[in-house]
Amino acid sequence: DYQHVQVPFEITLWIMLASLAKIGFHLYNKLPSVVPESCLLIFVGLIMGGIIYGFNDKSPPVMDSDIFFLYLLPPIVLDAGYFMPSRPFFENMGTILLYAVVGTVWNVFGIGVSLYGICQVKAFLLQDISLLHNLLFSSLIAAVDPVAVLSVFEEIHVNEKLHILVFGESLLNDAVTVVLYKLFRSFCEMPTIKGVDVFAGVGKFFVVGLGGVLVGLTFGMTAAFTTRFTKDIRVIEPLFVFLYSYLSYLTAEIFHLSGIMAIVACAMGMKRYVEANISLKSHTTVKYFMKMWSSVSETLIFIFLGVSTIGENHEWNWPYICFTVIFCLIWRALGVLVLTFFVNRFHVNTITGKDQFIIAYGGLRGAICFSLVFLLPDFRRKKLFIAATTVVILFTVFVQGMTIRPLVDLLAVKRKRESAPTVGEQIHIRFLDHLLAGIEDISGHWGQYYWKDKLEYFNSKYLQKLLLREHNQPKSSIVLLYEKLERKHAMELAETGQLGHVPAHPSFLGNDRTVLTDKNLEDALNLDALEHIQEILARNLYRIRRTGPAYNRHTLPGDTEHMDHAQEILILRHKNL
Amino acid sequence: DYQHVQVPFEITLWIMLASLAKIGFHLYNKLPSVVPESCLLIFVGLIMGGIIYGFNDKSPPVMDSDIFFLYLLPPIVLDAGYFMPSRPFFENMGTILLYAVVGTVWNVFGIGVSLYGICQVKAFLLQDISLLHNLLFSSLIAAVDPVAVLSVFEEIHVNEKLHILVFGESLLNDAVTVVLYKLFRSFCEMPTIKGVDVFAGVGKFFVVGLGGVLVGLTFGMTAAFTTRFTKDIRVIEPLFVFLYSYLSYLTAEIFHLSGIMAIVACAMGMKRYVEANISLKSHTTVKYFMKMWSSVSETLIFIFLGVSTIGENHEWNWPYICFTVIFCLIWRALGVLVLTFFVNRFHVNTITGKDQFIIAYGGLRGAICFSLVFLLPDFRRKKLFIAATTVVILFTVFVQGMTIRPLVDLLAVKRKRESAPTVGEQIHIRFLDHLLAGIEDISGHWGQYYWKDKLEYFNSKYLQKLLLREHNQPKSSIVLLYEKLERKHAMELAETGQLGHVPAHPSFLGNDRTVLTDKNLEDALNLDALEHIQEILARNLYRIRRTGPAYNRHTLPGDTEHMDHAQEILILRHKNL
Repeated sequence: DYQHVQVPFEITLWIMLASLAKIGFHLYNKLPSVVPESCLLIFVGLIMGGIIYGFNDKSPPVMDSDIFFLYLLPPIVLDAGYFMPSRPFFENMGTILLYAVVGTVWNVFGIGVSLYGICQVKAFLLQDISLLHNLLFSSLIAAVDPVAVLSVFEEIHVNEKLHILVFGESLLNDAVTVVLYKLFRSFCEMPTIKGVDVFAGVGKFFVVGLGGVLVGLTFGMTAAFTTRFTKDIRVIEPLFVFLYSYLSYLTAEIFHLSGIMAIVACAMGMKRYVEANISLKSHTTVKYFMKMWSSVSETLIFIFLGVSTIGENHEWNWPYICFTVIFCLIWRALGVLVLTFFVNRFHVNTITGKDQFIIAYGGLRGAICFSLVFLLPDFRRKKLFIAATTVVILFTVFVQGMTIRPLVDLLAVKRKRESAPTVGEQIHIRFLDHLLAGIEDISGHWGQYYWKDKLEYFNSKYLQKLLLREHNQPKSSIVLLYEKLERKHAMELAETGQLGHVPAHPSFLGNDRTVLTDKNLEDALNLDALEHIQEILARNLYRIRRTGPAYNRHTLPGDTEHMDHAQEILILRHKNL
Repeated sequence: DYQHVQVPFEITLWIMLASLAKIGFHLYNKLPSVVPESCLLIFVGLIMGGIIYGFNDKSPPVMDSDIFFLYLLPPIVLDAGYFMPSRPFFENMGTILLYAVVGTVWNVFGIGVSLYGICQVKAFLLQDISLLHNLLFSSLIAAVDPVAVLSVFEEIHVNEKLHILVFGESLLNDAVTVVLYKLFRSFCEMPTIKGVDVFAGVGKFFVVGLGGVLVGLTFGMTAAFTTRFTKDIRVIEPLFVFLYSYLSYLTAEIFHLSGIMAIVACAMGMKRYVEANISLKSHTTVKYFMKMWSSVSETLIFIFLGVSTIGENHEWNWPYICFTVIFCLIWRALGVLVLTFFVNRFHVNTITGKDQFIIAYGGLRGAICFSLVFLLPDFRRKKLFIAATTVVILFTVFVQGMTIRPLVDLLAVKRKRESAPTVGEQIHIRFLDHLLAGIEDISGHWGQYYWKDKLEYFNSKYLQKLLLREHNQPKSSIVLLYEKLERKHAMELAETGQLGHVPAHPSFLGNDRTVLTDKNLEDALNLDALEHIQEILARNLYRIRRTGPAYNRHTLPGDTEHMDHAQEILILRHKNL
């Protein structure tokens, strides 16, 4: 009775194949260190496609765009958003947005117009491709792909800033790609294009991008709020994280907003509150399952990419294809150079030449272009576009993906630091943040530290009270880190067997060597002491910051507690002017 | 663009609704302690069905049997199999099988024939229902439902033996139900029934049941074998547990074997090896996700059950419906009484009258009957059967499900012990097992301890070597328990803050108060000591058992090490005869 179970059976088998392929690669330790996993998976896909083609004598099934956008992409983007290092992301937000918006537009028009120039050469037999069709094609081929970037950059461990620049761009350019792609598509179907339509397109970009973020944040906050009430049914806590983020993606898709932006915003928004609300085991499950899901999705995407490459739906016009690859490389390199020139003029911490090279070279294309090209409306040269997209993807993933690691080694690009920051470092970073926020406050400059501080204030004053459970309220991240380290330490002790059955009391270590006979008293004392220390840690730095700006001529130290913050700022601004 | 995302969007919304309903109930603490969750969920479903019916003015969609059997049932059965307490299950295997096989057949024929009797009463207008149709109906209504049993029995905490008797029966009767249902269905379509067909049906039962178990064990062993090689990619470990068990279910379904038996066998078979192979975090994820999935599936099933009840596909012939309920109760009670009478004659640890009452009363019907009745071939009285099934399910879930807890309190049925067994108890249980195995060995009785010991020997000699990773080999369950306790202890210490940053060394506590200055030396010593202790724990009991039977007249103590075990048994048998 195979017919009956066919759908779930075949899905399960595909996933199984993908997982087994992954295991297979890792059994041979040498292979993954030379060739990126994405290449290997595409290769497996190519072989499978060849086998299917050989046996059936017809093209193997191409990856359905619906399956890709509805089921395979969301887990990867969710994983990316949830584990996004928020500090470097927000610090480099301006640069990332510049690359994502201006850079992508630059690439689209650059590639589109140059390809149109190529089409004018009579010898290439391409005169029937209009400028609009070229622009439509370039709008889908220009965007850097988050899946491809993630899979390659995770293996080469470049420094955090470089990573976030490339990866952030690949995520945020989704809005631009969606708008441009849909714009040119509708232009292709219109008889005449008016100036109004072009302006509407520009306006639409903001709607699509910001709308996506808004939808995501709404769902993220709802998710955080929901997890406030799951105390009695811990087992379904992880579910909400997945359900709400998926709903945010789907809702954004319904309204033609950027689903990727929505799910990233949802994940980043809820992470902090969900993490505090749900139990430790639930959180392990969430993290683990997210990684697992995205890893399987990624594997499936690359395998399908390989399978879909085989077949007869290509038109091999080599001049067009070759020039596409060349223009993709040139325009990206130019774009990065020009944009970085402007970025470096406004930043102290500049982007070096090496970094620029890696940013330009890391502009990999992947499955998103591939799915979009199949969604193109049918016209005479669609097969040429499919062929060109396939070649660009394979070129970037194989050639660039395989050479980027040796290049990073060769150029001695700054790597990621291996060790996690110590508690001391964390305290210092935090202290500097507060200091800089204070300086910005006094100097009247509304910089990132100023906004960060305001956001933090809003968060601790309103959001936390609404979204967190009662007993979770006051813990600062340093206390959390301390608890985590403590827990890790305890596990290590237990695993190496150094844990005695009577706990080591601080009195064993310090000068106070009095042995307490009453065990209970000992515990109680210790607990109190620890809570006290945590209190100090959690409150003090914030209190310093809050009372800090009070030391000015106009107010007395005692008054500041009751002073309204907005008023305080007004006075500062006034002084400044 | 709602059309495009409709399917995943609606699925996500349904799951969301189910989860939110669950949270809602738990917010009011009083409600779940009086009314079982299943009743509340059916109630929610009834309201929703009513709303849909009111707005659309047509019957709300009934639960698709395919969705139920392919997507909702497997997670619940997997969860049940994976967390099945294997010791009480195997100890009471005989009784469970008797209830599941003989009991179910008894119920089917009892209910079917009595209902046929009712049909002969002219006043009820039921003469057109043949004996075969009655038997077909009784074959689906007779079987106890694992989902309903699980959801009610998890809340009332009866003792382990009673729980496993009812729950084990509900799982294992699947094979009987499948065979009888399909048998009567094909008989209904045949013009004449020969004796051969009946015998084929009896033979088929063994094929379906044992075939399912075989398929499950095969996939379980493959899963265990696969997890040997996942050391480098920990994140996809949990996936294999789910993929292989689901594949076992689907494969069994393809060959018309018992899918439930397959997935239970797969889960029970792989649990031990998978647990040892995968990382601690992976295992937390597996356990958590299994619980989560099954909990959501269960919720959805009960809600759908409620929704599907509303509508116009019922024929309300009250005499038939009422007699169905009455016969279900009577025949189950009779069956339990008669079978327990025989069981008690052969067992020392008898089933008390109270237990018998709870077993009979706990025979709840649920979604499996409901899905099967919709799968019936169309004939004139199908709607009557649907109505009767609905009433029986609602009666058992509401009336029996709500009154069973007060009854358990009233009868003072022995409850489950709350605390986990201590290490001391574990050692004693294990020691007694070995002792009994030895006694059975010497007396030549091939009882359960004998077979258990043989299985354990086969496991440690062959299976473990094949299925476990290298370094995992020798650990006994006591050592594992010890490690678990140790880890828990460390976590508690870390959480209460009693963990000093220098570990407590035994030398602080014992007589040996020499302070070692070299920290590394200290660690090394301690580690060695612990490993030594673990070695002793792991090896000793088994070694005693293995060398035990050697002290007989025919062999000298030194020889036994090289003696073949099979030969040893032969000699013992020979002596006995």
